[in-house]
Amino acid sequence: MRYQLYYWPTIQGRGEFVRLALEAGGADYIDIARAEGGMERMMHLMQGEDVARPPFAPPFLKAGDLLIGQTAAILRHLGPPLGLAPQDEAGRIWADQLQLTISDFLVEAHDTHHPIAAGLYYEDQKPEAARRAADFLKARAPKHLGWFERILERNGSGWLIGHTPNYPDLSLFQMVEGLRYAFPKAMARLEQDVPRVVKLRDAVAGLPRIEAYLASPRRIPFNQQGIFRRYPELDG
Amino acid sequence: MRYQLYYWPTIQGRGEFVRLALEAGGADYIDIARAEGGMERMMHLMQGEDVARPPFAPPFLKAGDLLIGQTAAILRHLGPPLGLAPQDEAGRIWADQLQLTISDFLVEAHDTHHPIAAGLYYEDQKPEAARRAADFLKARAPKHLGWFERILERNGSGWLIGHTPNYPDLSLFQMVEGLRYAFPKAMARLEQDVPRVVKLRDAVAGLPRIEAYLASPRRIPFNQQGIFRRYPELDG
Repeated sequence: MRYQLYYWPTIQGRGEFVRLALEAGGADYIDIARAEGGMERMMHLMQGEDVARPPFAPPFLKAGDLLIGQTAAILRHLGPPLGLAPQDEAGRIWADQLQLTISDFLVEAHDTHHPIAAGLYYEDQKPEAARRAADFLKARAPKHLGWFERILERNGSGWLIGHTPNYPDLSLFQMVEGLRYAFPKAMARLEQDVPRVVKLRDAVAGLPRIEAYLASPRRIPFNQQGIFRRYPELDG
Repeated sequence: MRYQLYYWPTIQGRGEFVRLALEAGGADYIDIARAEGGMERMMHLMQGEDVARPPFAPPFLKAGDLLIGQTAAILRHLGPPLGLAPQDEAGRIWADQLQLTISDFLVEAHDTHHPIAAGLYYEDQKPEAARRAADFLKARAPKHLGWFERILERNGSGWLIGHTPNYPDLSLFQMVEGLRYAFPKAMARLEQDVPRVVKLRDAVAGLPRIEAYLASPRRIPFNQQGIFRRYPELDG
């Protein structure tokens, strides 16, 4: 099975959560929009009149005849065949819960720089961003990170579920990476309270396939068009 | 199977999406936090040291030994036994995509009155709310509603998937109801462009079990503590 990933070609964004799973699972895949003519193919699947079930937005994945949108739905589908999901049903439901909570956390991280409108520039919502980012760093990020810290403490293995890495572990790694990019000063402080989350981040970074991926040109660097953006004035 | 729903007892909120499915499916369930001692039981599952897999936030559902958090995950689990999900795997993945897109839409609706911080009062973020609500009504709500209109047009049956109501249909009904409560003036305008969405809303309201539920005291009225709130100054 050669998977086709559809996502914006110049940012990590939500697509990165899928890329990390594909890479960690050693999947055969093509990052469509980064290939010749790929953007047109992606836009067609969203806007073409002949597409019966058009995704609302990227990322989406073609897996054989299936077209799957929404990051958490894609990961739930990819987890089992890539060896990145628990074997039991209760474990899979739990993995999904963890992933959906990361999705919520991610929206909040995004909205620190776009609290008013995704369609406006950051420059058009700077005072609002300053207020939202301050609350995010004071209340929301510690709450989310603290919840994951408790999960790691209770599971006890160093991974979120069971004794092996699963897709939510990869996604939590990505959250930490993104937050470090966006808020280096605040994260240096926040990380002191979540040592298990930091250790998990290191463990994921040390997985051989992830290590190879991060060093490859397939990993798009963080930049100021993505979900995580570094505006020093927001990093308190 | 007697399901146990855990959600804040005085608002519709995210719990309502689960309540609608339980009601439409004729499930045997108890709305725990609305019963004697229920709030303590709910808080224990989130905060108790002995809970191995504590949910991040309500709603969550106990189904036998399973404890499931996150609205979309709960509905995915409830859909098949309640006869509210497609039979085929592709259909179920599609139902999940639709539901996750409604989850995104719902966050945006909430953030119209709380664009800066959920922990602050509306009164502490009124100018920001005015800007965010204006963008929501001009750009985001039409985009989301328009997408569902296209899905309904392409499916052709009046329901989002196949020829019978599924849980995303119930959730889209709830979105329309909530938006009508929060933004009666704007919705009167927006609905003109999405006649199929309006028809779906009416069809769901006419399902016998939903009709009975809506007329019962189990349906909590919309109010100013919920996700959808009516601030006339935001309804442009």
